[in-house]
Amino acid sequence: MAGGSRESGRSVTSRVLAILEAFEQSRTALSLTQIAEGSGLPLSTTHRLVAELTDWGFLSRGANGRYQLGIRLWELAQNAGRQLRDAARPFVQDLFSLTGETSQLAVREGHEVLYIERIYGTKRVPRASRVGGRLPMHATAVGKVILAYEEEWVRTAYLNRQLERSTAHTHIVPGRLAEELDQIREQGYATTLEEVRLGSCSIAVPVFHTGRIGAGLGLVLLTSQAGTMTRHLPALRGVSAQIERATAHIPLESLLGSHAARKT
Amino acid sequence: MAGGSRESGRSVTSRVLAILEAFEQSRTALSLTQIAEGSGLPLSTTHRLVAELTDWGFLSRGANGRYQLGIRLWELAQNAGRQLRDAARPFVQDLFSLTGETSQLAVREGHEVLYIERIYGTKRVPRASRVGGRLPMHATAVGKVILAYEEEWVRTAYLNRQLERSTAHTHIVPGRLAEELDQIREQGYATTLEEVRLGSCSIAVPVFHTGRIGAGLGLVLLTSQAGTMTRHLPALRGVSAQIERATAHIPLESLLGSHAARKT
Repeated sequence: MAGGSRESGRSVTSRVLAILEAFEQSRTALSLTQIAEGSGLPLSTTHRLVAELTDWGFLSRGANGRYQLGIRLWELAQNAGRQLRDAARPFVQDLFSLTGETSQLAVREGHEVLYIERIYGTKRVPRASRVGGRLPMHATAVGKVILAYEEEWVRTAYLNRQLERSTAHTHIVPGRLAEELDQIREQGYATTLEEVRLGSCSIAVPVFHTGRIGAGLGLVLLTSQAGTMTRHLPALRGVSAQIERATAHIPLESLLGSHAARKT
Repeated sequence: MAGGSRESGRSVTSRVLAILEAFEQSRTALSLTQIAEGSGLPLSTTHRLVAELTDWGFLSRGANGRYQLGIRLWELAQNAGRQLRDAARPFVQDLFSLTGETSQLAVREGHEVLYIERIYGTKRVPRASRVGGRLPMHATAVGKVILAYEEEWVRTAYLNRQLERSTAHTHIVPGRLAEELDQIREQGYATTLEEVRLGSCSIAVPVFHTGRIGAGLGLVLLTSQAGTMTRHLPALRGVSAQIERATAHIPLESLLGSHAARKT
């Protein structure tokens, strides 16, 4: 698709989106040159498109002349997958109130878990995830529980991939992981012990939607609490059931603005 | 700027962004025709750009053939204004834990308040705001408190506008509102009583950044609690001070990817 671009090759649309995506990897503001490098576009094109994106508030230019994603983009994006987040949020909130532990809801996006909700206090627990962030499925409790209840072919496809190791404790042996997933389905929950980060452990239960796995609901705790984290299962299961009830009426395709989710 | 568009007039960039913005007003998925109407673009152009945006995951196509904003967009947008939200969120969480009431943090975007954080339980309180949503400044406690501490010219410019009435109780007489803003600065907090929605009241305190007003931190409560809501002031002030400390090191321009904020 030319996207009406005079320059042949990449369409203007793809250039605009490439510029926005250049900000994904960086937590700090970027210079025009950095944006050009990140998006693989000529500086002149970058300059022109960045100016337009800034006019629209999709990018914002700091006093230091560097750019970052504009709050306008964030504001607009709140409409994506809002039905699920709006429906689930108060219950994730309840889970935090009940347990006092970092509470999170995640869905599968391709080969990773995407954290769509996270409620936490000021208590410091080492964690890698953030709202809008992704982690490998096999290293996280929410990811394992989603994988465990996914369709057979999704599990098989995942286990046939090269599984990365986040810590020395990450389970990456496909055969062992397959057994673990079977056990997760038997017991109805998944746990991890320092598989993502040293110092923390996690536990998660499935959240179903129209009879299939929809999300993972979990807690992240300090490693010192690993021995007792199953005491939170009643709270996790109760809240999961509430989220299932609250989202049952939402059609799957409008649950999350996610194409990956529809691929399953 | 032509944005490399062969069609003269609106650039391709502006067309792409217009398509994304067409989803702002709607909570439901849109058909191609509705997107074309919302963005003011020819159906053929809309069809082509929507296809590209869908390939990138910025839009997603439901089983019903309708489109919505893709979770990919939401994921990317999490990087906008993240420093402020990441720094403030646990403290807003504490405010909720301390008060048990709907707790929110808002900033000024142009003539409105934009809610960037909201923590609430399952308790039902009539409210108009949502995260990523906007409300008029003069009808909300967070908006009044921001307006009260804004620079003189911002206050004056705002009061000279036509002030809309959300309920019969909304204060819209400029003179009276000006007096109210002076009083808010004297007492250090703002309150509303059914000015946004019947059935709810609110209270808010200022959050300063580098000596100027940065945000409003507030609670929304049931009207029946209006008489006693000032008992939450110590919690509001304490948490506001914590947010100020936690964000003091963040340069203003990277605090929120907001161009409006820099206009002041």
